[in-house]
Amino acid sequence: MAVAGVTSPDGKLGPILSGDCVGILAGGGPLPGQVAQAVAALGRRVFIVGFQDFAEPAVIGSWPHRYVRLAAAGEILSCLRAEGCRDLVLIGPVRRPSFSDLRPDAAGARIMARIGRALFSGDDGLLAAIVRVLGEEGFAIHGAHEFLSASVGRRGVLGRVRPDAGAQADIDRGRTVVDAIGRLDIGQGCVVQDGLVLAVEAMEGTDRMLLRAGECRQPGRPGGVLVKMLKPGQDRRADLPTIGPDTVRRAAQVGLRGIAFQAGATLLTDPDLCIAAADAAGLFLVGIDAEGEN
Amino acid sequence: MAVAGVTSPDGKLGPILSGDCVGILAGGGPLPGQVAQAVAALGRRVFIVGFQDFAEPAVIGSWPHRYVRLAAAGEILSCLRAEGCRDLVLIGPVRRPSFSDLRPDAAGARIMARIGRALFSGDDGLLAAIVRVLGEEGFAIHGAHEFLSASVGRRGVLGRVRPDAGAQADIDRGRTVVDAIGRLDIGQGCVVQDGLVLAVEAMEGTDRMLLRAGECRQPGRPGGVLVKMLKPGQDRRADLPTIGPDTVRRAAQVGLRGIAFQAGATLLTDPDLCIAAADAAGLFLVGIDAEGEN
Repeated sequence: MAVAGVTSPDGKLGPILSGDCVGILAGGGPLPGQVAQAVAALGRRVFIVGFQDFAEPAVIGSWPHRYVRLAAAGEILSCLRAEGCRDLVLIGPVRRPSFSDLRPDAAGARIMARIGRALFSGDDGLLAAIVRVLGEEGFAIHGAHEFLSASVGRRGVLGRVRPDAGAQADIDRGRTVVDAIGRLDIGQGCVVQDGLVLAVEAMEGTDRMLLRAGECRQPGRPGGVLVKMLKPGQDRRADLPTIGPDTVRRAAQVGLRGIAFQAGATLLTDPDLCIAAADAAGLFLVGIDAEGEN
Repeated sequence: MAVAGVTSPDGKLGPILSGDCVGILAGGGPLPGQVAQAVAALGRRVFIVGFQDFAEPAVIGSWPHRYVRLAAAGEILSCLRAEGCRDLVLIGPVRRPSFSDLRPDAAGARIMARIGRALFSGDDGLLAAIVRVLGEEGFAIHGAHEFLSASVGRRGVLGRVRPDAGAQADIDRGRTVVDAIGRLDIGQGCVVQDGLVLAVEAMEGTDRMLLRAGECRQPGRPGGVLVKMLKPGQDRRADLPTIGPDTVRRAAQVGLRGIAFQAGATLLTDPDLCIAAADAAGLFLVGIDAEGEN
């Protein structure tokens, strides 16, 4: 069992420094492996439940793990209990499942009933409901950012390129836009070029929004800015905005001049590579406060 | 000259019932021709300035007309004055021009300077600025809806299909979303499926948003709803939301179950064909009030 209230030397990781195995519920991308490494570095055992079709063998294969269907909640819970995991981390993207594909097991069907309407609300509502249900099942859910503090984007300019006054104005407008769409549980990002909102992210995700923004781009003007922020009030234990070197390269390809992300609430999958990619492409990469925070 | 204050039999078309030629600044689609017809039916002369690359020869060709580049403001103004047009109507979609393509004439450059920052703000700001400048030049700008009253979508269900309670909930959520993005001058539409916002319209336009919504659609659930509304505070003399039979067919193709539009502030390019297409596809078509109006 995790010992609640134990304080770590830096005063932050107290409750997760000691105790039994930490369970990682893993979607795609490299972050589940990074969380596993960070957990192991704290002297804790790791067990990864990899969501079938999402978790990547190259990432989780070298850790104790098991692949489970997303909706096989019974299997997931019994496996976490058998491994003695009380502390859990949800990390890595998972596409919202289609209901015809779900095929929940018996426990999964019961849990879906408990999640209820949130299954059909925005992602934020769904993830918050999953975190709540896991809590009711006796697990303690932690945010990946608690383990990956070095990957949490910090405030200020990260690379060599700084936003100019025009870019700063676009960042400010983008932040207002993302704040508004986030409050409506629509999405976490938008692209603004010279005051004009080129694209707003909903279900399609950041990559597709970037491609569209590139196609709607106004020629003859400075490039646009991608702004990614947490939804206001969003639970930080699920679905933090994430930026990787691919995001940076794609932003450059579609003619953007920079990326602004919420400082302290965005994961950079590989900060050094992100900065190197931004510097190489002449893009800025800047951590900003949420609307109303500064 | 139009005689201000003259009242028509129905009390609506007063100032435009009498006077000289009505100038139509025409973008694409069938509506410029319909406005010309309505103007002629009022006994007024018509002259159409067709924007090159946008106005359609099949639509404006049978009316007195001239093609002019969008940025050739000097040519546009002198041509309208030579024809004795004081009353103007802006109608038909025009893509926001790229600045490298604009090549304004001398008067165009002066007008662009007067429009100033609004050139780079949202569409709403740009169109409002154009209406303002035309007013300063001595023209009276009218909304196309003043002439096309039969094409203005009315409140309530238009065809045979009625939204059920679930669809009504999606309409309500969509209206809240479009109100919010409209206030930020982002766009006029979104698609909601079962509480989930599939797509939000920004620069890409309704057609592309519909395609994307179809791709993000959640299987195994009732289809989504397209909601189109005026931006709150938007000048009705420019860029009214428009729905045509193609919009209805495309909505059906991507699996939607209906379209809700702002009653009294949406143009149906051909109401009978829109309703027939909706009935044939089993879609509802419903005029609703703006957020806070009912």
